[in-house]
Amino acid sequence: MVDVMPVKAPIKLFSLNSNPEIAEKIAAAAGVPLSKLSSRQFSDGEIQVNIEESVRGYDVFIIQSTSYPVNNHLMELLIMVDACKRASANSVNVVMPYFGYARQDRIARQREPITAKLVANMLVEAGVDRVLSLDLHAVQVQGFFDIPVDNLFTVPLFAKHYCDKGLMGEEVVVVSPKNSGVKRARSLAELLDAPIAIIDYAQDDAHRDEGYIIGEVAGKKAILIDDILNTGKTFSEAAKIVAAEGATEIYAVSSHGLFVDGAAEKLDQAPIKEILVTDSVKTQQQTPKNIAYITASELIADAIIRIHERKPVSPLFAYTKG
Amino acid sequence: MVDVMPVKAPIKLFSLNSNPEIAEKIAAAAGVPLSKLSSRQFSDGEIQVNIEESVRGYDVFIIQSTSYPVNNHLMELLIMVDACKRASANSVNVVMPYFGYARQDRIARQREPITAKLVANMLVEAGVDRVLSLDLHAVQVQGFFDIPVDNLFTVPLFAKHYCDKGLMGEEVVVVSPKNSGVKRARSLAELLDAPIAIIDYAQDDAHRDEGYIIGEVAGKKAILIDDILNTGKTFSEAAKIVAAEGATEIYAVSSHGLFVDGAAEKLDQAPIKEILVTDSVKTQQQTPKNIAYITASELIADAIIRIHERKPVSPLFAYTKG
Amino acid sequence: MVDVMPVKAPIKLFSLNSNPEIAEKIAAAAGVPLSKLSSRQFSDGEIQVNIEESVRGYDVFIIQSTSYPVNNHLMELLIMVDACKRASANSVNVVMPYFGYARQDRIARQREPITAKLVANMLVEAGVDRVLSLDLHAVQVQGFFDIPVDNLFTVPLFAKHYCDKGLMGEEVVVVSPKNSGVKRARSLAELLDAPIAIIDYAQDDAHRDEGYIIGEVAGKKAILIDDILNTGKTFSEAAKIVAAEGATEIYAVSSHGLFVDGAAEKLDQAPIKEILVTDSVKTQQQTPKNIAYITASELIADAIIRIHERKPVSPLFAYTKG
Amino acid sequence: MVDVMPVKAPIKLFSLNSNPEIAEKIAAAAGVPLSKLSSRQFSDGEIQVNIEESVRGYDVFIIQSTSYPVNNHLMELLIMVDACKRASANSVNVVMPYFGYARQDRIARQREPITAKLVANMLVEAGVDRVLSLDLHAVQVQGFFDIPVDNLFTVPLFAKHYCDKGLMGEEVVVVSPKNSGVKRARSLAELLDAPIAIIDYAQDDAHRDEGYIIGEVAGKKAILIDDILNTGKTFSEAAKIVAAEGATEIYAVSSHGLFVDGAAEKLDQAPIKEILVTDSVKTQQQTPKNIAYITASELIADAIIRIHERKPVSPLFAYTKG
Amino acid sequence: MVDVMPVKAPIKLFSLNSNPEIAEKIAAAAGVPLSKLSSRQFSDGEIQVNIEESVRGYDVFIIQSTSYPVNNHLMELLIMVDACKRASANSVNVVMPYFGYARQDRIARQREPITAKLVANMLVEAGVDRVLSLDLHAVQVQGFFDIPVDNLFTVPLFAKHYCDKGLMGEEVVVVSPKNSGVKRARSLAELLDAPIAIIDYAQDDAHRDEGYIIGEVAGKKAILIDDILNTGKTFSEAAKIVAAEGATEIYAVSSHGLFVDGAAEKLDQAPIKEILVTDSVKTQQQTPKNIAYITASELIADAIIRIHERKPVSPLFAYTKG
Amino acid sequence: MVDVMPVKAPIKLFSLNSNPEIAEKIAAAAGVPLSKLSSRQFSDGEIQVNIEESVRGYDVFIIQSTSYPVNNHLMELLIMVDACKRASANSVNVVMPYFGYARQDRIARQREPITAKLVANMLVEAGVDRVLSLDLHAVQVQGFFDIPVDNLFTVPLFAKHYCDKGLMGEEVVVVSPKNSGVKRARSLAELLDAPIAIIDYAQDDAHRDEGYIIGEVAGKKAILIDDILNTGKTFSEAAKIVAAEGATEIYAVSSHGLFVDGAAEKLDQAPIKEILVTDSVKTQQQTPKNIAYITASELIADAIIRIHERKPVSPLFAYTKG
Repeated sequence: MVDVMPVKAPIKLFSLNSNPEIAEKIAAAAGVPLSKLSSRQFSDGEIQVNIEESVRGYDVFIIQSTSYPVNNHLMELLIMVDACKRASANSVNVVMPYFGYARQDRIARQREPITAKLVANMLVEAGVDRVLSLDLHAVQVQGFFDIPVDNLFTVPLFAKHYCDKGLMGEEVVVVSPKNSGVKRARSLAELLDAPIAIIDYAQDDAHRDEGYIIGEVAGKKAILIDDILNTGKTFSEAAKIVAAEGATEIYAVSSHGLFVDGAAEKLDQAPIKEILVTDSVKTQQQTPKNIAYITASELIADAIIRIHERKPVSPLFAYTKG
Repeated sequence: MVDVMPVKAPIKLFSLNSNPEIAEKIAAAAGVPLSKLSSRQFSDGEIQVNIEESVRGYDVFIIQSTSYPVNNHLMELLIMVDACKRASANSVNVVMPYFGYARQDRIARQREPITAKLVANMLVEAGVDRVLSLDLHAVQVQGFFDIPVDNLFTVPLFAKHYCDKGLMGEEVVVVSPKNSGVKRARSLAELLDAPIAIIDYAQDDAHRDEGYIIGEVAGKKAILIDDILNTGKTFSEAAKIVAAEGATEIYAVSSHGLFVDGAAEKLDQAPIKEILVTDSVKTQQQTPKNIAYITASELIADAIIRIHERKPVSPLFAYTKG
Repeated sequence: MVDVMPVKAPIKLFSLNSNPEIAEKIAAAAGVPLSKLSSRQFSDGEIQVNIEESVRGYDVFIIQSTSYPVNNHLMELLIMVDACKRASANSVNVVMPYFGYARQDRIARQREPITAKLVANMLVEAGVDRVLSLDLHAVQVQGFFDIPVDNLFTVPLFAKHYCDKGLMGEEVVVVSPKNSGVKRARSLAELLDAPIAIIDYAQDDAHRDEGYIIGEVAGKKAILIDDILNTGKTFSEAAKIVAAEGATEIYAVSSHGLFVDGAAEKLDQAPIKEILVTDSVKTQQQTPKNIAYITASELIADAIIRIHERKPVSPLFAYTKG
Repeated sequence: MVDVMPVKAPIKLFSLNSNPEIAEKIAAAAGVPLSKLSSRQFSDGEIQVNIEESVRGYDVFIIQSTSYPVNNHLMELLIMVDACKRASANSVNVVMPYFGYARQDRIARQREPITAKLVANMLVEAGVDRVLSLDLHAVQVQGFFDIPVDNLFTVPLFAKHYCDKGLMGEEVVVVSPKNSGVKRARSLAELLDAPIAIIDYAQDDAHRDEGYIIGEVAGKKAILIDDILNTGKTFSEAAKIVAAEGATEIYAVSSHGLFVDGAAEKLDQAPIKEILVTDSVKTQQQTPKNIAYITASELIADAIIRIHERKPVSPLFAYTKG
Repeated sequence: MVDVMPVKAPIKLFSLNSNPEIAEKIAAAAGVPLSKLSSRQFSDGEIQVNIEESVRGYDVFIIQSTSYPVNNHLMELLIMVDACKRASANSVNVVMPYFGYARQDRIARQREPITAKLVANMLVEAGVDRVLSLDLHAVQVQGFFDIPVDNLFTVPLFAKHYCDKGLMGEEVVVVSPKNSGVKRARSLAELLDAPIAIIDYAQDDAHRDEGYIIGEVAGKKAILIDDILNTGKTFSEAAKIVAAEGATEIYAVSSHGLFVDGAAEKLDQAPIKEILVTDSVKTQQQTPKNIAYITASELIADAIIRIHERKPVSPLFAYTKG
Repeated sequence: MVDVMPVKAPIKLFSLNSNPEIAEKIAAAAGVPLSKLSSRQFSDGEIQVNIEESVRGYDVFIIQSTSYPVNNHLMELLIMVDACKRASANSVNVVMPYFGYARQDRIARQREPITAKLVANMLVEAGVDRVLSLDLHAVQVQGFFDIPVDNLFTVPLFAKHYCDKGLMGEEVVVVSPKNSGVKRARSLAELLDAPIAIIDYAQDDAHRDEGYIIGEVAGKKAILIDDILNTGKTFSEAAKIVAAEGATEIYAVSSHGLFVDGAAEKLDQAPIKEILVTDSVKTQQQTPKNIAYITASELIADAIIRIHERKPVSPLFAYTKG
């Protein structure tokens, strides 16, 4: 019985309006040009999407970060998915470098929604066949879907960045700026051969008191790590605590840089040497002065090609410590 | 076999943020106070809903017009539905005085979405058990749902308004300002014992040429009727045509007044004596000077009570010509 | 990244029992022979379908108009779909030149069903992957499905027919014989560069009074257009009104010719020069003397091939005015 | 914790058009009057159902045998279910004294449908909450549903009938007229304290040769039992075999009497003393001279009341041998 | 229009833990090596499955008999299906030589589950696209699924075995050891040109009295046939009855040999010359001395290849009498 | 509009076989007796469930911990749910004091299943309307369901236990024995007004190296907290580390005590003064000498009553620090 090559439909790549820059980089890296569509918002707020090329029989990949304004970007994505499904696409794959509402992943207080699950249900109901995401807030969100979800990790990208700078080993400490992010800190620490520390707050996140550090940072170079850099408050407070405890240099790294609510100003005043984020989100806000970007586009492009060619994506998760 | 009374759970009424005024009027008319919830939007655009009273075992009615900004109001509604379902509401009923995206109800050009169906699917997937709507753009949208949809008609309200003014009989003509709204014009004409006329455009709506009238308006009082008053362009152009053809007085009536894109200015310059709309939409835009409001709250309140008491809503559709 | 050809499974075409003539023409035009099946009805009314060729791995297209007797033809279609799905067809596509129950697309009176939606749900539940229809009664019926529906238009066929006869321009008027079909009249008028007129009835369709015309027909050649020619009453009455108003010649055109309930007799007595219909329905009734047929089989065959080859069907909708 | 009474909505009973006689008897026995509806078939074969009383909040029971013409009766049932669901019935229960298509419950030859499952899926998709059936052809059909199915047995009714006649004990033999109905024969034999015999055919049912008997019938009173009396061929042939083998008297009993295809004539010529059937089917055909009816209406009415009052239906299955 | 070859993805074959022997034989016969996975059970009883090769884009066939311990083997199968689906397999096909819980296919007593349907629903919900089974207990179980189920028959294998031994014609009688298995006996008898007989019990199976035979076995070689050889009680009792009635030689054949609860001992004491079973089940129990195995692996391998190559499986059902 | 009392069906409580002790305590605390069912496992491993009382119209609560042997207990639960649904229960509520497979809640390595989601899907597909759980491994598992899940917390029970012993304030430290359980430790610490510390391992859990502590424990009484006490290895190692760092007394607390794989022996050798667990799991293994049990039955009983009476369960989450 002679084996055959995997079946693959031809591919088309579309960018919606939230982050055309990363879409263009992904397209360039994948060697697949962006296809044409028009998506406009009427004066009553309704979005109208027109796909301007045939997608009949194609594997369609739609690139959209559901960042601010999240509801518009999410609806634009759902409408595009509906259009692709009705236009007989062979498969509809959504590439979400930033997955909005991911933090609403549990019922924290009685009678709360689980909006991340609602979003997952909306995507599947609209007709999505597969999701490609980048560093989801909680890995359990993969289980909110019954379709394949390939969740790429940013930690190897960050590890390479810091290793290139010589930031590794015992003189470094990776700090989780809140008690719920220890796994991510542990993961980066592993690649840097460094220990970890944790900032804890006596009260819950919403009404938190002054925090304190658990673990040793004195005399070390501290790398604060979080998945979403939102208002900058978490990093800013953490940096002050870490500095007060004697860290010699402070770095901060986050997969998704939203920078809302005056984040830039707050971070500019914090003792942080460099703030590293990926280009998953195109913020419309001011960014801090010492910001550094690392692109996730090549990683995503590589994943798209592997998915399309029915090759395993597991090699993307490998990282050889340097 | 002795019969029993219909089963009914206790009722709770909630208002979301798009039109609290009509919600308060509905609550007053129904004699059911609005229950408490908090719904706020974070700086990153995400909405968080907290229901502040138990809904366990209750028939919940959620009042929300999905008007501008439609995507925020729709997501707020979906999130609230998710929260109610998880909090064990007996049933989740949504009251949508204005149903956004209703005009995207068909594929007008190749590869378009059918966003009205997408919205219907989203509502059902989120957990809605029943919809109460007001003058849907196309009655076929009821069929986009497999759950009960009670679609209330505004034409009897308008007929009463004009009869009270003495606007009825042969000296009146009801004019559909575009060729797709003839059924609605026919329906009002029926109650006013008046003939109809139609404005036709040689090209399709998107790139339309100068229109012309089919039917007789000379010497008559013309009532222009449409379901959605959006930019005011349709009424404004129709009024000019009708005036040029010799109508003696011109009225305009629409179920839903959005007034976007400079509608007020346009309408203020048109030869229209009175522009009548319901309070289904709370617009944030300027409204024309000669606007008149008629409340749909009593009609909606009556329907909510009938639904809750498991009584037929059909009496709400009756209207005895005066 | 080198692109690949669209994936396509081999194709098989089947005809059920409602309209074998159009099926044979479609097969001939598509260059795909009809595959074998036996479908018989037992004396207790039950239908048994046996597919007599393997369909495993094939894209199956089933041709069936759900015309009279609609329930038998619909059940035969559903049973065939069930058999194809269980026999491992790669995809099940139904080609419905006439889509029965399409007029029951809304709740006209309280407590009515929406049977067109029921039919859509039945088809999808049975296992249909795609629908190919011809001039659906209401375009919103596409939205009753969440699978791709390609709805072909007959108006370009009709326009070509009349242009070939020289019926175009200002001496022609396209007349909608009822107030709900204006869009279809507008669409034909557009291609003929002709104006439109409308027949209106003071009461609703069910108990209607004598109608009257809105618009100008005197001295013109009138083309009455409707989607379904059922009992002939609508055309017959309209023709009398148009004749009374001074039309010089009267034509009638309808996509689907059912001719039930003595339609032929009624139409033979009406002042209509030619009654044009497609071959979407194979009626078992007498047809009027001045009937003319235009085949939709080439249009449908072209669509089947395009769908099967994963090419866009949009070119089928183009029509260059002559 | 004090217990409460079962929740029950008020009840409405509707009859569709296949068997109004049994519906009236069921209504009388249950003490629940039949509610009003109109259901008519247009000249194009389409069925239109109008429910003429409110069903909002009611437990609706719809009585319909899907006997000849099965496709019309099935579609009428599905349409009524759709209407009830959209009209906000509390629950939709279908009472099917005869369940058409039940014999198509397996794939007998390659590429056949399983139409009984298709019918089950259609009912559930249309909105049925519960099914009440009578002696399903195969008990496994209950498993085609994931909703509750209460399948009533007719054997106790038949046993009582024969016991009253003194037909019991060793002088009686219960004969299955084909090798697939042994379980039903065993079940009646159990209640009559009688042995069983079986008619076997060397070939399959479709092309069967002359049959022969397995077991002893000589000198005994034979009762032939089957679930569906269709064309009369099975009973007629079996009676001849049993007579030839020396049975002294021959009775035949079947739950459902369709009597199609000249059954009466065939049975009148067979040596059968009495042909017993229930009133589950209202045949439009001639019936044999020696027919006897036993009504299933009381059994069904009792089940409806028990279901409505949330009481167990298990007592209906008990039968004390007399 | 040139036809194309069926679309096929490459294939991977996996064996879970219930019957690796048949899996290896199937793999050898199909010419497709078994792919690697690890599946282990932790000390708390939870099963963890890791697929050790990429399945992205592959047609995966998973071989698992859900025999003792059925719940572990079923969960192992469901977990593997979940893993394959999330790992982007092109299709997930389960090959179940033995389908556990198949006998719980109806509600025998009030308030019983239909566990065979539950199992079918679990498989489909987990993500199975197709089932390949071997001699299902009841053919109606195919209808418990709405996905394709190819149910292979063992009777032709058995017929060949007996014909090779010269066991055919009138000197042979095929005996159903209980009244519910007559169809299977009839089917084997057909291929052997032999008559049938039936063992009947006056009470139901659970509390059965002494049985007796219906039909002639005296002087004949009797072949007892059943689908599942469980505790051996059915065959053991039947053999005694048949021997007492004068059969000259007794054979027993069953598709699935579980041999639980001391079956070997019971059967060793029964007058049965040979007990024939397939290798569908790998029992952990002692087997009787006079057991003979016939492998179903070649039949299954042939079916897998045909399914994968999108060829009809119907030839596998053919058998030319010898 | 006068309000009405919540609708409630009568209640029945059933215990399956995994933990009858807690079921009896729950029944006693709720004042609702356990209803009768028989559930037995045949020699081939299949489970048969018979409900021995009518459940028609009842709110059924089924108590089952899916602990060892997890697959049997899970299947028993699913089968019981199927039986209840088919027997017309008004609602099916499952009470799972221990939710097996909860730790398989994410894809840790490529091509792994998400078995916790699979279990959630199985429960919903089988017919569960609501889940009542106790301290789920990850709160995100609530989002694996779209039905209401009430997840009770054990931390208030534990806090009360330690407060009663005077274990609170700065002389106590709550220690998470692994870096993924910080939230649970923080939660207990909050109620005890105590700081937290964390045991970290340089490698991932599976192949972990020697751990070390982050935070201060010297001179304090340490309380180790985890959700599942499985093999005892985590607590045993943590206790040694904490002891080596100078903790004066060591306590360990876990919601669910499985005690598999020689846990008792391991824990008896560790320097732990008291091992506190709830009675959520009835282990068949030996338990450590210094074990203390705290019953969760009252908390669960209270929740069942509140759910049944449609009262909010939120008061169960309140705890006033003492």
